[in-house]
Amino acid sequence: MLSENPVRSVNVGIVGLGNVGTGAMSILAGNAAQIEAKLGFPLRVRTVCSRSVASKELPAGLAGVKRTADWRDVVNDPDVDVICELIGGTGVAHELIEAAIAAGKSVVTANKELMALQGAAIWEKAIAAGINLAMEASVAGGIPIHTVLREGISGDRIQALYGILNGTSNYILTEIEKHGTAFETVLAEAQRLGYAEADPSADIDGFDARSKLALLSALAFGEQIAPTDIYTEGIRRLTPLDFQYAHKLGHTIRLLCAARETDEGLLLSVRPALIPSETILASVQGAYNAIWVRGEYGADTFYYGRGAGPHPTGVAVVSDLMRVAREIRSGSPERVSPFAHERLGAYKPIPITLQRRAWYLRFRVHDRPGIIAALANILAGKNVSLDAVLQLPSDSKDNLPFVITLETTSEQDVRDAVARMATLDFLTEPPLVLPMETSL
Amino acid sequence: MLSENPVRSVNVGIVGLGNVGTGAMSILAGNAAQIEAKLGFPLRVRTVCSRSVASKELPAGLAGVKRTADWRDVVNDPDVDVICELIGGTGVAHELIEAAIAAGKSVVTANKELMALQGAAIWEKAIAAGINLAMEASVAGGIPIHTVLREGISGDRIQALYGILNGTSNYILTEIEKHGTAFETVLAEAQRLGYAEADPSADIDGFDARSKLALLSALAFGEQIAPTDIYTEGIRRLTPLDFQYAHKLGHTIRLLCAARETDEGLLLSVRPALIPSETILASVQGAYNAIWVRGEYGADTFYYGRGAGPHPTGVAVVSDLMRVAREIRSGSPERVSPFAHERLGAYKPIPITLQRRAWYLRFRVHDRPGIIAALANILAGKNVSLDAVLQLPSDSKDNLPFVITLETTSEQDVRDAVARMATLDFLTEPPLVLPMETSL
Repeated sequence: MLSENPVRSVNVGIVGLGNVGTGAMSILAGNAAQIEAKLGFPLRVRTVCSRSVASKELPAGLAGVKRTADWRDVVNDPDVDVICELIGGTGVAHELIEAAIAAGKSVVTANKELMALQGAAIWEKAIAAGINLAMEASVAGGIPIHTVLREGISGDRIQALYGILNGTSNYILTEIEKHGTAFETVLAEAQRLGYAEADPSADIDGFDARSKLALLSALAFGEQIAPTDIYTEGIRRLTPLDFQYAHKLGHTIRLLCAARETDEGLLLSVRPALIPSETILASVQGAYNAIWVRGEYGADTFYYGRGAGPHPTGVAVVSDLMRVAREIRSGSPERVSPFAHERLGAYKPIPITLQRRAWYLRFRVHDRPGIIAALANILAGKNVSLDAVLQLPSDSKDNLPFVITLETTSEQDVRDAVARMATLDFLTEPPLVLPMETSL
Repeated sequence: MLSENPVRSVNVGIVGLGNVGTGAMSILAGNAAQIEAKLGFPLRVRTVCSRSVASKELPAGLAGVKRTADWRDVVNDPDVDVICELIGGTGVAHELIEAAIAAGKSVVTANKELMALQGAAIWEKAIAAGINLAMEASVAGGIPIHTVLREGISGDRIQALYGILNGTSNYILTEIEKHGTAFETVLAEAQRLGYAEADPSADIDGFDARSKLALLSALAFGEQIAPTDIYTEGIRRLTPLDFQYAHKLGHTIRLLCAARETDEGLLLSVRPALIPSETILASVQGAYNAIWVRGEYGADTFYYGRGAGPHPTGVAVVSDLMRVAREIRSGSPERVSPFAHERLGAYKPIPITLQRRAWYLRFRVHDRPGIIAALANILAGKNVSLDAVLQLPSDSKDNLPFVITLETTSEQDVRDAVARMATLDFLTEPPLVLPMETSL
């Protein structure tokens, strides 16, 4: 339902009609009356673009919009004020965004990969061109974490940010935890249900979460963070047994994205970690996302919602469009680059091996006398203090699992010790090493 | 540490140097370098005002600011761009805000009471005067819920909002729950520790939470909500026993603020309610606040943090100041009134008695035969279906507690039935009636 009053609309061109584009369009059409009431003017879809645009069914209320298969038509349309880049990837999407900026049009994007890789350069161009750039939808779809960091708690000085940022891997982990099912079985089922892709690597090996953490830590710390600055490890090696041991220790296991300030610099990682069961982060189940922010002044805040899906991510796109439209209408886009205070220089990434934490080491061995002594000797040789040895009942003498926890130790010392263990012939697989986030 | 570069600052006058004023000042002083790096210009405290200003110690870096005991000096200072109203209450604070607006100065306020009572009128004047008004600190101190509703998820259409908005009562309830201590004992201890006021009524009778819900639902539904539109009931009658029964039913009890859309209008309440233990809202312990928002498109999002305290609330004030300063600098304050879309008229409050829910009824009786039959007869007479009868072991024949749960029933029918029960001579106190929020 579009307005009949004569106030001039702000006009949107949508490029990319996949899940997110379709979700955003259906909100722009279905929620048009309330959007106009909030803004004081209509936000109108002027053009939509996708390669298969001819065959796309548009929501009621958008039947009359222009359709094109060539994104240049959208950039060159003098009636389009804002362009939504919802193609994804780093090819055409990049070309489109640069062309839009060059044409003096503001841009709303959901593209985490491109913004994580090229964000700083794109922002520089946007600021120089005097247009606005908004990217709420690029991380944690339904959670307005960009708005929170950019405005809501901008007065605080962020010390640490923890996130569960990949819904697929969180779904897989909580299924393993709840039902004691093996990783491969849960993954296959998730693929069958459409929760995981045919090639699941981006999700389960941590690369998707890594791009998201690069963007969020840029925003939180005002520093340019490359995805490759982030130590990344996936969830393939986790077993139901690891959850049993974690529970025994009062913890659960999540694929934890962490960015934290130390005196030496920023520690950045995406990896499975033990987190205490009583923390609110541990209560995040299934395909949900969550972000925990620790500020010097505001202390802890926590944000939770759906990480993906056409409608949750569509809300992020439409909310960005509304902000950008307001700023276009007021004549002065507020260009708040996430890298705006990068010149502080206080937050350079440092190697993860410098971090000191408690550790969980899970072994599988051919059982025989002297195993604990051999392992303890290696640990002692690295000055690593053993905290506890746990062994749940098992009848598998040939592949016996047990766990050693370590007191607070540097990751480098743990890695050195584990490297020395590789020569031990009783191990049936390399030890699984997980940090214990006891300070959460 | 103030900037030495020649970029002109935006200047702040702070009126009120209590907890929040002191917290905001210490952030403005301690975090000045990062605030300036984010803004691109300094945010400078120009004047501070309180009745006892002469004896106040100011943070390092603010030693040179002007001091006055008369708020008119701040309003009339041509060098002050933004005024922070941190006095509280509805008297002087109101006068100050109106004077600031009349003088063309933007206002940041933490005043929930005033904004809940007079917000719509104050916003109208602010918009007419072309100044900005910001009030993040007025609700749920450390949680940037205003920013989230105003911008982060502005594209969604909110269907329901649930909150735990009073830290004191949540602290008291979780202490009763954890330790099985009586309400009066926990309250006295909370008063001793400074968590509860000498006159605790505003917190434990729900009035503080009611003002907050009035503000949040105005923002969420774009409707002018008076505190008196909200059905309000406090936590005085809750006992450790109620938590035992709630747990038995898979629930806990919280002072729940609820605003939800129905076909007939808005249902608004602040009251103790049973909420399912597995929900994330149930995990909110101690003096924390939390807000759960259900949108038509974005589905559920959840926000959690400290509800009060000089620094968390100070972060809200300073973040508001930064936004307002940016808009002053860009020459066009974006005046987004929480009542901006009130003309939709779709969200009028309706009487709470129209709501239909499941119910928890806790009785205390002189035990004798026929009690359940008598109660069941009254319920049947009102067409109310009994769901279950629960009785935990007890040796108190003279004051025997038990619980009846009811299937989904209108609040009016439950009230009618309970009114009829008042005549029964075996009751030692009126039944305690709590809604069960099974749909959370």
